[in-house]
Amino acid sequence: MTSSWTGSTFIRQRRTDEDLADDDDAVISGGLFPTSLRRRGILPTGCCSDPRMKLHANADFGPNPHHPEDPARIEYIMRTLKANGLVFKGSDADLLKILKKEPAKYMYRIPAREATREEICTVHHPQHFSWVEGLSKKPTDELRLLSSKLDQGRDSLYVGSMTFEASLISAGGAIETCKHVVNGTVKNAIAVIRPPGHHAEFNQAMGFCLFNNVPIAAKICQTEYPEKCRKVLILDWDVHHGNGIQNMFYDDANILYISIHVYMNGAFYPGKPDNPMTPDGGIEMCGAGPGLGKNINIGWHEQGMGDAEYMHAFQKIVMPIAYEFDPDLVIISAGFDAADGDELGGCFVTPECYAHMTHMLMSLANGKVAVCLEGGYNLEAISKSALAVAQTLMGEPPPRLEPNKKLNKDAARLIAKVQAIQAPYWECMRPGIVDVQDLKDQGSMRLHDVIRKAQRQGLQEKHNMIPMYIHRDILFRSFENQVLVTPGLFSARKLLIIVHDPPELHAQPDPLTNRLDAHNTYMVDGVTEYINWAIANNFGVIDINVPHYITHPQDNDAFTPRPNEKALQAQIQDLITYIWDNHLQIHDADNIFLMGVGNAYLGIKVLLINRDVKSRISGVVNFVNGNLRPVKSDVDQDLSGWYKENSRVYVANDHACWADADYTRKVHKRRFGTVIRSDVNGLTRMMREHFGDVQQWVMGRLSSEEDEEEGHGDTTEEEKFA
Amino acid sequence: MTSSWTGSTFIRQRRTDEDLADDDDAVISGGLFPTSLRRRGILPTGCCSDPRMKLHANADFGPNPHHPEDPARIEYIMRTLKANGLVFKGSDADLLKILKKEPAKYMYRIPAREATREEICTVHHPQHFSWVEGLSKKPTDELRLLSSKLDQGRDSLYVGSMTFEASLISAGGAIETCKHVVNGTVKNAIAVIRPPGHHAEFNQAMGFCLFNNVPIAAKICQTEYPEKCRKVLILDWDVHHGNGIQNMFYDDANILYISIHVYMNGAFYPGKPDNPMTPDGGIEMCGAGPGLGKNINIGWHEQGMGDAEYMHAFQKIVMPIAYEFDPDLVIISAGFDAADGDELGGCFVTPECYAHMTHMLMSLANGKVAVCLEGGYNLEAISKSALAVAQTLMGEPPPRLEPNKKLNKDAARLIAKVQAIQAPYWECMRPGIVDVQDLKDQGSMRLHDVIRKAQRQGLQEKHNMIPMYIHRDILFRSFENQVLVTPGLFSARKLLIIVHDPPELHAQPDPLTNRLDAHNTYMVDGVTEYINWAIANNFGVIDINVPHYITHPQDNDAFTPRPNEKALQAQIQDLITYIWDNHLQIHDADNIFLMGVGNAYLGIKVLLINRDVKSRISGVVNFVNGNLRPVKSDVDQDLSGWYKENSRVYVANDHACWADADYTRKVHKRRFGTVIRSDVNGLTRMMREHFGDVQQWVMGRLSSEEDEEEGHGDTTEEEKFA
Repeated sequence: MTSSWTGSTFIRQRRTDEDLADDDDAVISGGLFPTSLRRRGILPTGCCSDPRMKLHANADFGPNPHHPEDPARIEYIMRTLKANGLVFKGSDADLLKILKKEPAKYMYRIPAREATREEICTVHHPQHFSWVEGLSKKPTDELRLLSSKLDQGRDSLYVGSMTFEASLISAGGAIETCKHVVNGTVKNAIAVIRPPGHHAEFNQAMGFCLFNNVPIAAKICQTEYPEKCRKVLILDWDVHHGNGIQNMFYDDANILYISIHVYMNGAFYPGKPDNPMTPDGGIEMCGAGPGLGKNINIGWHEQGMGDAEYMHAFQKIVMPIAYEFDPDLVIISAGFDAADGDELGGCFVTPECYAHMTHMLMSLANGKVAVCLEGGYNLEAISKSALAVAQTLMGEPPPRLEPNKKLNKDAARLIAKVQAIQAPYWECMRPGIVDVQDLKDQGSMRLHDVIRKAQRQGLQEKHNMIPMYIHRDILFRSFENQVLVTPGLFSARKLLIIVHDPPELHAQPDPLTNRLDAHNTYMVDGVTEYINWAIANNFGVIDINVPHYITHPQDNDAFTPRPNEKALQAQIQDLITYIWDNHLQIHDADNIFLMGVGNAYLGIKVLLINRDVKSRISGVVNFVNGNLRPVKSDVDQDLSGWYKENSRVYVANDHACWADADYTRKVHKRRFGTVIRSDVNGLTRMMREHFGDVQQWVMGRLSSEEDEEEGHGDTTEEEKFA
Repeated sequence: MTSSWTGSTFIRQRRTDEDLADDDDAVISGGLFPTSLRRRGILPTGCCSDPRMKLHANADFGPNPHHPEDPARIEYIMRTLKANGLVFKGSDADLLKILKKEPAKYMYRIPAREATREEICTVHHPQHFSWVEGLSKKPTDELRLLSSKLDQGRDSLYVGSMTFEASLISAGGAIETCKHVVNGTVKNAIAVIRPPGHHAEFNQAMGFCLFNNVPIAAKICQTEYPEKCRKVLILDWDVHHGNGIQNMFYDDANILYISIHVYMNGAFYPGKPDNPMTPDGGIEMCGAGPGLGKNINIGWHEQGMGDAEYMHAFQKIVMPIAYEFDPDLVIISAGFDAADGDELGGCFVTPECYAHMTHMLMSLANGKVAVCLEGGYNLEAISKSALAVAQTLMGEPPPRLEPNKKLNKDAARLIAKVQAIQAPYWECMRPGIVDVQDLKDQGSMRLHDVIRKAQRQGLQEKHNMIPMYIHRDILFRSFENQVLVTPGLFSARKLLIIVHDPPELHAQPDPLTNRLDAHNTYMVDGVTEYINWAIANNFGVIDINVPHYITHPQDNDAFTPRPNEKALQAQIQDLITYIWDNHLQIHDADNIFLMGVGNAYLGIKVLLINRDVKSRISGVVNFVNGNLRPVKSDVDQDLSGWYKENSRVYVANDHACWADADYTRKVHKRRFGTVIRSDVNGLTRMMREHFGDVQQWVMGRLSSEEDEEEGHGDTTEEEKFA
């Protein structure tokens, strides 16, 4: 069985023989480790650390001197790497001997060194360098005072007498790590360094960061290896946004900065409270000038993200864009504060997931990946995470992820938004994104107007319903034609007023252009059935369609936001009170029923609160799958009680209020009405499910009122109007 | 600087010390290679081959004995692995000594062996085993006859006197390779084996395949290691569909079969010509019973796919589903006939892309990946591809892909369809997929009816246009209300007949539910402007909306296919000739203009061909961004010439006809009319762009006819009808 291993003569075609020349011995002779030209993979992984970085410690000798950015951080990580056999315990000379034979056995020690002033000033202002340098000359009491002053708000910093020196080594460690990766001494590498860097700005230390290690290293590599290292991807998975890195390269076309972080609409560190409109970490921050599209923020809307969300971000955004960018070097700004166990971060990324993210990034740049420690404050969590990353760098298969973690829906929506925002800059982000400005240039119209026109046509054909006359100047144009009424409304003895959301649309758009084929788009509408039933039972009907959105001509966002609830509420209030004051108040119907569907049920709430209508209303039926709203009034103490007794509020089965016992208790209070948990979800499904129930309830209230309270008897409409 | 490497006392928190116990020496003692429990990655990669598999050769000694499935295939691959230093040239004993010290230096030799009858019959019928066994007993002339008979159609097979023995070793090699991976003797492995297996059915040899190596190996691993190897992912990237694997595990919940192959609607091997409705490789084949959802076909619509499409398939489908399945073992059915250079496959996958796909799969199952050779017939291509795969298995970073390859649009659509088809079975496929059956259960209506209703309402309000009366029994219901006409049509002196596609819709649906907000959905319509203009200029207008799709109540496909052009053409022909025969033929208008927009311009073609209308038509204007159609007639030889002189056919700037010189020449022939390349793309944009041009052209033809041919002078409509 050995002939195919040692060569054979059984060859019928020889056309590739030249390619098959034996180049087993072709090696890179200049490097530390002799390696076949085609086998960079057998180079060792590098690791850079230096105990001098532990000398940066808090000078604030107050009653609670502990600070999360503690010297023990790198100590713990290094001990863990050692305990797991990744780090050799003997001398450098012995290590080198071993690695030349067995390159994957241990990590190669990359020596750290102090960065120079020139190196640091590639991305920092000389005055900033001098400020940090000055710390080493300050007396201890002054440092103590400074630390306690800086440990506030956005600064969030401490300083000590050795801060300058430690910071120089941290930056120098990052430089040496990246250089070793670029020049091929090692396959890839990890720098276990501190203080971290990614918050440090051009001219300011902040967020535990003095010098911005990763940008310095990236700049030095680009300068010293202009051929080999032109394009750098910096992937920042620290739970905080790396404002410093973003700002340093915001207009740089050759540095792609991708950050995955908790954003919370700017409320999470380092959001800018002084300029809340544009915190650095927002997803709309895409770079500028030549760097447009080279800044990608995946800023979670809340804490609590874990493997499912990070894997999703990598699959949907990070890896497709990274492939398209095709970097020469990947630097990971590896904070481990999104790790499961880090209380500051409040996220749940497992060591396994860090391994998988590392493994994915290792497919880029011929495997040239340099990992630089940033934040991360739970010693156990950062150690386990860093171990997983280092093992993966060394060629260990990433361990299996815990399966079937549910993807957070809002995170999935955020990812889709990031895709829409990056679509102009990246081919791979374009499929499935609508260019709203371009559609407007083609004279498009929003579909909600089209649909309401069709509804009006349908209700007119079937029931002769017509638009109600409304003084237009008091209302936005969006409410035009939104109110349809049955003919002879004023002589109806029974009225049903339905305030509803527009019908639901579901579509399977073309995956590339998002063009819809109308025949693949479906409209689902639960209201028509109720109108048909009401008219068949001689109700007069007022059908009020409330658009989700009040059109503003300047909106060009592909995801036009859901309506500003306050503005919409003001509009609905104007409309519904207008209808009440001008039409219903003077109406002498015996029975008036209100029905609210979806977010539009807000209209029912504002009518009940703003007009004293209790005595005129025979019942209220609401279908809710969004915000549940209380009906109460400071003026009318009986309102909530009346509402409870005279309403049925169907709430979707998957509504958040059922998941939380406190919330459930709350919605059973009087002011939320008689709340009923539906067996189903979705407005249309709910309306169909409870149709019989509602009919019975309405008719039951009707006859009892007619029979007992007003004694109208059981006459039919025909008899009354005969 | 050595203290952090060798341990230190600088620790302020000790809470994780127990976890940090030094377990450097904990090894798996049973294995061939001692390895730290936490470092499976330093095990060697295995490789299995055996020269005896070359003994299966074509017994058909005809004038052209060469067969693509040639013994040289494995010879070339092994030589290439050797030439690149992946395979040791010395003895097994020396290799073992080296690997114990330097596990990544060479691949470990996994010995092949003959599979047993029992092993093979885990997936094959005993009669099939006996049939193959019988080949070894047949005389050469009989084998020759059999080979020449089998080398036809779907059988596509050759046999020889050593076929049985070689097939046993091929299957045994696959078994040993997978077992070595599962039991952890090696990190991962590649089996360079032949004959291939994936076409072989339970009871039939076909497609160069005798025994189905990979299913046999999977079954044996599941049986022998029930704990360690319960769930197996078989990823088949051979360019042909692995019908045998699919059918053997079609109802098996523990084997996920994913195949990426050329399908061509069943026309590509091994499509089933005897049952063209359900060729095995169709994307709708999802498994059955307990195996429902465990069969995934990514069947390309055509050849020519390359890195962009394969990476896209991996990013969008393969990896998300594989993570969700979470296999214990990954087997790659690795045909290299989709490789760039393989003429049979006609695809362009590079060695780099094979490396990346391998690297991605290595993130699964704790890295337990076994690669088994299937097809691939260009010796150079398969050797380079196998080398890239083997290097990646050994820990080499995957080489960079050639950047910015354009993704084939139809391939992207196919991937989206696969997502829709798999959505019921995989959580990760669900976001963005519409469940049509569920929408129907909610009583939805297709949006095209809604839109047409709105258009009708609009044209009625603005121009008093009304539906034309049409005998319904001769036409499908879909054409109801699709024809609107201006009032007093019969007295109009000038007519414009517009046959158009429905307006375009563009939407940004919710990324999870595909629910549309109508305010985020845009309708773009180029026709209304022309109608307004025509009516302002006293034209009578017939507006014919041609739905893309004729509704069939039983369709539940999220992507209802674009219309069957033939059926649609028959319908349009019925409609347009009905209108001509009943309304226009007897009309005495001086000028009739025809306008065709989009696919509906088919209507213009069928009218011109099926009725002799030349003398009545003053001009034809078409806007085309889909199929360009010739207007010619065997009966009327002058028709094409007349069409050329009396038409303007605006063709989208990005139409395929401009990309190819032959095609361009062709569309400038008379029968395509006067074809004009537009500066823009998209029907609506084109109609806006050429609005002025069309007005001028139409008015120019009008006045000349009126002035010269019929001498009507320049009277206005008012004067005429005064």
